[in-house]
Amino acid sequence: MPIVTVQVTREGSAPGRNSVTAEEKAAIIKGVSEVLLNVLNKPLESTYVVIEEVDLDNWGWGGLPTAQYRQQRAAETKS
Amino acid sequence: MPIVTVQVTREGSAPGRNSVTAEEKAAIIKGVSEVLLNVLNKPLESTYVVIEEVDLDNWGWGGLPTAQYRQQRAAETKS
Amino acid sequence: MPIVTVQVTREGSAPGRNSVTAEEKAAIIKGVSEVLLNVLNKPLESTYVVIEEVDLDNWGWGGLPTAQYRQQRAAETKS
Amino acid sequence: MPIVTVQVTREGSAPGRNSVTAEEKAAIIKGVSEVLLNVLNKPLESTYVVIEEVDLDNWGWGGLPTAQYRQQRAAETKS
Amino acid sequence: MPIVTVQVTREGSAPGRNSVTAEEKAAIIKGVSEVLLNVLNKPLESTYVVIEEVDLDNWGWGGLPTAQYRQQRAAETKS
Amino acid sequence: MPIVTVQVTREGSAPGRNSVTAEEKAAIIKGVSEVLLNVLNKPLESTYVVIEEVDLDNWGWGGLPTAQYRQQRAAETKS
Repeated sequence: MPIVTVQVTREGSAPGRNSVTAEEKAAIIKGVSEVLLNVLNKPLESTYVVIEEVDLDNWGWGGLPTAQYRQQRAAETKS
Repeated sequence: MPIVTVQVTREGSAPGRNSVTAEEKAAIIKGVSEVLLNVLNKPLESTYVVIEEVDLDNWGWGGLPTAQYRQQRAAETKS
Repeated sequence: MPIVTVQVTREGSAPGRNSVTAEEKAAIIKGVSEVLLNVLNKPLESTYVVIEEVDLDNWGWGGLPTAQYRQQRAAETKS
Repeated sequence: MPIVTVQVTREGSAPGRNSVTAEEKAAIIKGVSEVLLNVLNKPLESTYVVIEEVDLDNWGWGGLPTAQYRQQRAAETKS
Repeated sequence: MPIVTVQVTREGSAPGRNSVTAEEKAAIIKGVSEVLLNVLNKPLESTYVVIEEVDLDNWGWGGLPTAQYRQQRAAETKS
Repeated sequence: MPIVTVQVTREGSAPGRNSVTAEEKAAIIKGVSEVLLNVLNKPLESTYVVIEEVDLDNWGWGGLPTAQYRQQRAAETKS
């Protein structure tokens, strides 16, 4: 009876989207549940998956809010 | 100093409601805090309770988003 | 299908014990599961409970490891 | 590669605010990431920080929702 | 930069094992990281996976410690 | 009343150590509690800190267990 918690930033995976779509969530749920089935033989119905979308402001990386960290990395890559 | 985290789907417990009510949240907080008091003798004021409401789309069960899994189970029960 | 996570310090509830007993764990599981049943009408079999025991060194309170914080509070109470 | 999760109540730190500001979030991210750098020598870019803001109704303390517990404590202090 | 937390009971997936093997852990890490890559286009190097093994006594289901709940379900199925 | 959870790999910060020391844990607890005090004005005594040490096998990065991912990165850097 695994519990899988997936934390991702709340943003779109393509231009014009600003969040994870319901189809993408369903694909994540299916995918990680099948990993537990295939690797540990856990029946699908015993696995709970919880997806937590985190606002970009609330996710830090490199000591900065994510948006700023990405800008910094992009700037470094260019130079 | 226990920390109790309660994750539930964001939905009503009765027709016409679409979320957990403030009264229900207060009852959950009281109930689980008293369990820790009664079983482990933890003073109420040392227990933190955090309730996390999770959108139905973000909760997976049986490899599916919860709403679809419930439909599938209901269909199986009927047949 | 709630998930309840209970974090407590790894210590005994009575002299001569140094951890939570199996009976206490069972009582916590029973107690919190019944809270969800009574308040939100969640069937017992849909609730997962995970108990996490945390070493005293790994739990901080008042800016200090818990054992030191308790000593400090006990000293303050006496004086 | 530490992960630091910071859970706080969703409320302002000064009159007229009702949530944590973007500047405060950035300061939390910077501060806790630097703690991990200074104490454990973890590079900033390997630390993830996730800030979770929790509604006051969803945070329990002393067996009560936080707002009620604060009122009770304030009343006790006065008397 | 997703974080995936996988909580499973600490037990073997085959007779004679009493925990998840290093190979199984590696397969879980690979599998769930690839789900995030395939569904949300998250680079593998930006995904952290944390596996938490939970003692059977510390995992509750059906209001009981897991081992007891499984016995109860097995008994019900037979009768 | 913040809760700060710090997850780190269980390994030493210097040769000859294989875990985080008690002094380092105390410094982490002090440091992150002071961040919450300084940034959000949260009293030290209202902050709980929980440190979770995660075995290297149980932490994945880049789709691999951490030890393997580090070897791969080191090899890439050399070449």
